[in-house]
Amino acid sequence: MSEALAAPLSDADATIQSMDDASPTKWHLAHTTWFWETFLLRDHLTGYRLWREDWPYLFNSYYEAEGERHARSRRGMLARPSLADILTWREHVTQAMAPLFGREELGDLIELGIAHEQQHQELLLTDIKHALFQNPLGPSMWTEHPEIPHRSAGKGNWSEHPGGITPIGHRGPGFAFDNECPRHRVLLEPFALADDLVTNGEWRAFIDDGGYRAPSLWLSDGWAWVQREGIAGPLYWRGDEAFTHCGWQKRDEQAPVTHISYYEADAFACWAGARLPTEFEWEAAAATRDALAGNQLDRAGPPLPQGTGELFGDCWQFTRSAYLPYPRFRAAEGAVGEYNGKFMSGQFVLKGASCATPRGHSRSTYRNFFYPHHRWQFTGLRLAKDA
Amino acid sequence: MSEALAAPLSDADATIQSMDDASPTKWHLAHTTWFWETFLLRDHLTGYRLWREDWPYLFNSYYEAEGERHARSRRGMLARPSLADILTWREHVTQAMAPLFGREELGDLIELGIAHEQQHQELLLTDIKHALFQNPLGPSMWTEHPEIPHRSAGKGNWSEHPGGITPIGHRGPGFAFDNECPRHRVLLEPFALADDLVTNGEWRAFIDDGGYRAPSLWLSDGWAWVQREGIAGPLYWRGDEAFTHCGWQKRDEQAPVTHISYYEADAFACWAGARLPTEFEWEAAAATRDALAGNQLDRAGPPLPQGTGELFGDCWQFTRSAYLPYPRFRAAEGAVGEYNGKFMSGQFVLKGASCATPRGHSRSTYRNFFYPHHRWQFTGLRLAKDA
Amino acid sequence: MSEALAAPLSDADATIQSMDDASPTKWHLAHTTWFWETFLLRDHLTGYRLWREDWPYLFNSYYEAEGERHARSRRGMLARPSLADILTWREHVTQAMAPLFGREELGDLIELGIAHEQQHQELLLTDIKHALFQNPLGPSMWTEHPEIPHRSAGKGNWSEHPGGITPIGHRGPGFAFDNECPRHRVLLEPFALADDLVTNGEWRAFIDDGGYRAPSLWLSDGWAWVQREGIAGPLYWRGDEAFTHCGWQKRDEQAPVTHISYYEADAFACWAGARLPTEFEWEAAAATRDALAGNQLDRAGPPLPQGTGELFGDCWQFTRSAYLPYPRFRAAEGAVGEYNGKFMSGQFVLKGASCATPRGHSRSTYRNFFYPHHRWQFTGLRLAKDA
Amino acid sequence: MSEALAAPLSDADATIQSMDDASPTKWHLAHTTWFWETFLLRDHLTGYRLWREDWPYLFNSYYEAEGERHARSRRGMLARPSLADILTWREHVTQAMAPLFGREELGDLIELGIAHEQQHQELLLTDIKHALFQNPLGPSMWTEHPEIPHRSAGKGNWSEHPGGITPIGHRGPGFAFDNECPRHRVLLEPFALADDLVTNGEWRAFIDDGGYRAPSLWLSDGWAWVQREGIAGPLYWRGDEAFTHCGWQKRDEQAPVTHISYYEADAFACWAGARLPTEFEWEAAAATRDALAGNQLDRAGPPLPQGTGELFGDCWQFTRSAYLPYPRFRAAEGAVGEYNGKFMSGQFVLKGASCATPRGHSRSTYRNFFYPHHRWQFTGLRLAKDA
Repeated sequence: MSEALAAPLSDADATIQSMDDASPTKWHLAHTTWFWETFLLRDHLTGYRLWREDWPYLFNSYYEAEGERHARSRRGMLARPSLADILTWREHVTQAMAPLFGREELGDLIELGIAHEQQHQELLLTDIKHALFQNPLGPSMWTEHPEIPHRSAGKGNWSEHPGGITPIGHRGPGFAFDNECPRHRVLLEPFALADDLVTNGEWRAFIDDGGYRAPSLWLSDGWAWVQREGIAGPLYWRGDEAFTHCGWQKRDEQAPVTHISYYEADAFACWAGARLPTEFEWEAAAATRDALAGNQLDRAGPPLPQGTGELFGDCWQFTRSAYLPYPRFRAAEGAVGEYNGKFMSGQFVLKGASCATPRGHSRSTYRNFFYPHHRWQFTGLRLAKDA
Repeated sequence: MSEALAAPLSDADATIQSMDDASPTKWHLAHTTWFWETFLLRDHLTGYRLWREDWPYLFNSYYEAEGERHARSRRGMLARPSLADILTWREHVTQAMAPLFGREELGDLIELGIAHEQQHQELLLTDIKHALFQNPLGPSMWTEHPEIPHRSAGKGNWSEHPGGITPIGHRGPGFAFDNECPRHRVLLEPFALADDLVTNGEWRAFIDDGGYRAPSLWLSDGWAWVQREGIAGPLYWRGDEAFTHCGWQKRDEQAPVTHISYYEADAFACWAGARLPTEFEWEAAAATRDALAGNQLDRAGPPLPQGTGELFGDCWQFTRSAYLPYPRFRAAEGAVGEYNGKFMSGQFVLKGASCATPRGHSRSTYRNFFYPHHRWQFTGLRLAKDA
Repeated sequence: MSEALAAPLSDADATIQSMDDASPTKWHLAHTTWFWETFLLRDHLTGYRLWREDWPYLFNSYYEAEGERHARSRRGMLARPSLADILTWREHVTQAMAPLFGREELGDLIELGIAHEQQHQELLLTDIKHALFQNPLGPSMWTEHPEIPHRSAGKGNWSEHPGGITPIGHRGPGFAFDNECPRHRVLLEPFALADDLVTNGEWRAFIDDGGYRAPSLWLSDGWAWVQREGIAGPLYWRGDEAFTHCGWQKRDEQAPVTHISYYEADAFACWAGARLPTEFEWEAAAATRDALAGNQLDRAGPPLPQGTGELFGDCWQFTRSAYLPYPRFRAAEGAVGEYNGKFMSGQFVLKGASCATPRGHSRSTYRNFFYPHHRWQFTGLRLAKDA
Repeated sequence: MSEALAAPLSDADATIQSMDDASPTKWHLAHTTWFWETFLLRDHLTGYRLWREDWPYLFNSYYEAEGERHARSRRGMLARPSLADILTWREHVTQAMAPLFGREELGDLIELGIAHEQQHQELLLTDIKHALFQNPLGPSMWTEHPEIPHRSAGKGNWSEHPGGITPIGHRGPGFAFDNECPRHRVLLEPFALADDLVTNGEWRAFIDDGGYRAPSLWLSDGWAWVQREGIAGPLYWRGDEAFTHCGWQKRDEQAPVTHISYYEADAFACWAGARLPTEFEWEAAAATRDALAGNQLDRAGPPLPQGTGELFGDCWQFTRSAYLPYPRFRAAEGAVGEYNGKFMSGQFVLKGASCATPRGHSRSTYRNFFYPHHRWQFTGLRLAKDA
């Protein structure tokens, strides 16, 4: 599946890196392979020999416990190994994995490997989009538009929630990241959540009303960022077009706005006389809906048609909650313990899932996280207010 | 009182700026004067004329609603006006304020002005300490040591708290900042809080155990900061000495460690097998103690002798809570609404008060906030653990 | 011929850019094609239509008269057009050029186009070497070593020159760049020039003697550069190996040292009790040798075996002359006038030719130029002294 | 005399540093005192004890042979020692010097000390001007304008020079820096030099004609600098005013333009259809004039009335000559050998003297030097052309 995403790309497409935050397509394919090879094959398959002794140095992302590694900012220098070489390695590793799938004690680690692979599938898409965007020719990798959030605008309704003591975090069974645990209780005030995501058309109104020029709407760090970077609209906007995996396309004003930063989301909410929800409010609302709808939360992913009011599948939705550990949180043992916990400063939690999230990957307890200036993910917003 | 702090300083001492985060002594004196002149005299005293028409541009800190201002990073270029000129202005403003003190409708604003003045008194002390530290001669501004946290080491006891639903935030009466409001309820798990602050001696053990070289102890951003800045100990440490307002002094290993960043505090806690408290845990514990001790929370400030287990008066204590709005938070109207709310991203809450905090300024609901790499304040830590 | 240099490279190899000073292989091929298409076909072939209307924006290097262009630092983002697309374009342009070769009035411009192409052949080689060097795998593009300067160490002889009034600059006939003109007279003091280039072995002695740690040997800017960048040896050195187009290879201590900066060359000369020659001394010495040897100066290029004392074909040799206009210099008319003249500040002149210079490209009046910190060219040095 | 320049300044004025290139007034006074104390008193007066053991670390500028020193960029942090403390030290050193003035073998070193002091007098003035300029209040240090070049506009005449072999460099007797030596011969083509400096009015015409927006007029590095820094006129211009030591003043359009960079001077000359002279042309022209006028070259300095055609006393005049060693140049022995030679890369030579140069300091062989982007000196230009 990861290979399928890379299929329309040339070796050169798959090699370039547009910024430190983004990685080359090739690197994503190699890094996820490294993850399987390291934490499953090397650690658990007797007699397994590394495909190449010097590749782990290249494809370890940030696991300090796994030793020194190639600098993140220089991943775009890896013209070698080629895309074909990496695909060969992937095939080798995939086959070598076969005997491990039946081993029950490895179940959690394998599920982690799958979730990890899925996360990198989304990153692969957002990173290559950013890379193609650098090219003045406006190249495309697809001829249709599966990645554009396409939910039509709603009716502006709000769903109220009575607040109270609410369970938060993963209950199980099923896989969840360590940062979704342990399940615990949170006390909420009554609140309301918008049924719909904010749309491109609503964002246009914010711009036209001088939203990017009014410091009173902005957080102090956000205003400094707007001034320093000359921000005047969402990433990927140009006139009435937006850049997509299919090149420059006319923007749909009814579709959810995306590729905005936390700073922008917060300023918009302020301008709209509302606020962003907390991660707990979002999760409580999702649990309520879940209870009403039966257990069908997990419908993320591009192929599914989206109806009004969907929580998943259009954009990741900023919350005003900082990404911090839940009470009694414990990181996993070993190198995989570096997966989530060490990033718990300076970032904000996003809930939901985007059009680029693999179907079945997200859930209502899922905690995605990015820095407040990040925009290259499919980020959007859903307003909240006090009830 | 602010003038008294500047009394040992020359015009030159009061002019220099050591980094963007710190301001010159003179600027603090002028900025607080500007605050009174702008928000009280100009806005509320009929016929008041500004002392100098072009000084507000120099001494507005960050109030966008008050217009353009001198760049923060260039405050050290203001050799003029002189310290004497600013003191003359202060005297003028102080006298002009007299008729306003009786006006009841201005009470809140005047209390804000006083709290603002007190905050800048602490900043004045921490900023001039940083400025003097730049000088290889190691100059001093005092001959005694009132600013060194001097609590003797405790017995390593922990106070348990049962958790449960706890009121958080200012109840009134009395002054509080808008960010302490509104009072609301938070649900806590049982926890324990150390009676004592971590000491220099304990920090020495952390260093000796390789704490600054073990990435597994650190947040990802923290480890990057350690590597990039070459951090190997608290700010102001040199051998067995520490830099103080009295120059270089032998360090007291029994005294609380101070001038550490959030990253360091978090890594230390990890090394110690504990964690940092949340701001809610800290406040709940303080409220409990308060209830036991009668209503004497407010004992911050250098002159008071400190007993074991004091919450206030040694160091600001990092919490693991991000600085975010309380439920139903509303910023104040007008320019003073920029006081707190717009800083609610990227920073962490500190509780308590330091040896440099004016007596009577802090309280258990007080929320101080700094970025996780900041160290020039009197910052320390108190450990917490799950109970 | 340019195509032959790129033959061992993949599309990905040809796409990456290792630093602002270096360009991707693909970009070199495209830029030289753009040069032919723009200044010859577009301007002089009636009815010629641009291959792609939006490619000139991508492949203009620095010709302001030709309008806006893609930022130099972002050339590595051009995964598209592919290497194959560019080769197709090159073939088209080459064929379209046929009718122009017979037009006498275009002779100078065509010669400039050829010289331009040759310069980019050398840059292509030095840039791809730098790009491959970034890869921890140490990849190679060739299996033999044509690019390593291979002259064996000489006998340490010096050739004296009596000085006096010397003609400097291109006399014609034959092609020369505008910066070699007009020919004029320079008055020289007597001097001596080393017959041999400084070798790796001699450079090793400089290092072993603490050359990189002795500020007294260095220009002030050079010493600051050494400190800031942590320079401790030539670019591409590692232990007793050097990085080459064939990967890491054992260094030949008898071969000329290369990939050094002006700062290093100057410090070495100081350490050796000598100095660098001026460009005029070098040219005068070359003219003398030329007169003795008949007219065979032009032997630059990898295939030729080199004897002791060769001026061309090993390394470009730093002179202590700043790159400045000759008396009565006039830049060419039109956009091609931006070729040389506008770079006449801050750079130093290098004479000779390197093992990567196309055979027949250089001559004794040739003035190559780089900034004093540049090291990625095949730069070396020949000592001079007063006679 | 240096003290007199600092007389109108407060301790705070004398402490601040506006950029890395500029030093505080106090530092200049201390550094020149250090020079006397180190190279004369310490090295040559038996039994002399340093005034303060830890001050040399603060006030050594760049003499590597004298050991480590306070970072240049942090000179503005030295609120201590105070201006008064430094003046006390100066008095002590001045008195201690008395016995050395009669010692003939120290004559050269004493002359160097005097020349050094004079250079810092000029730097003190240009640095404090830049520092005061940072202040939005536009403060002044004088009430009259001695520092403004005040020569009235000339008649646009050119003086021709026949070229030929010309002696260049200091002949003696009398003091000269090592970089003016040895005297040697240079062969010049015929040229003409403008009698007058370019004026503010002429520069206004250059601006009005779009000079700062026409890349064809600029060196490549210069154009990049214009774009990056947003340069649109000389430093210190604002509308029809210029900032001076007396604050903002109406600009005299007849006075020589000043505070321009080499890049600007070169672009102006290009726009004017002329060029900058070489340092050799300038010196040859000065020698000719000198021969005609008798031996009165040395008329630099503010108090002297200036007639049309003066070479000295208005502005330093950019030449197109890079600052490089003369043939057979040898730096002086010892630490003072670091005075000039180590700066011979990347800078351009300026000739003449400015209104801020102490009277008697300059001469026709004098070689001042700055980087091509520097503007805070009193820099101007005199055009040249081929004859």
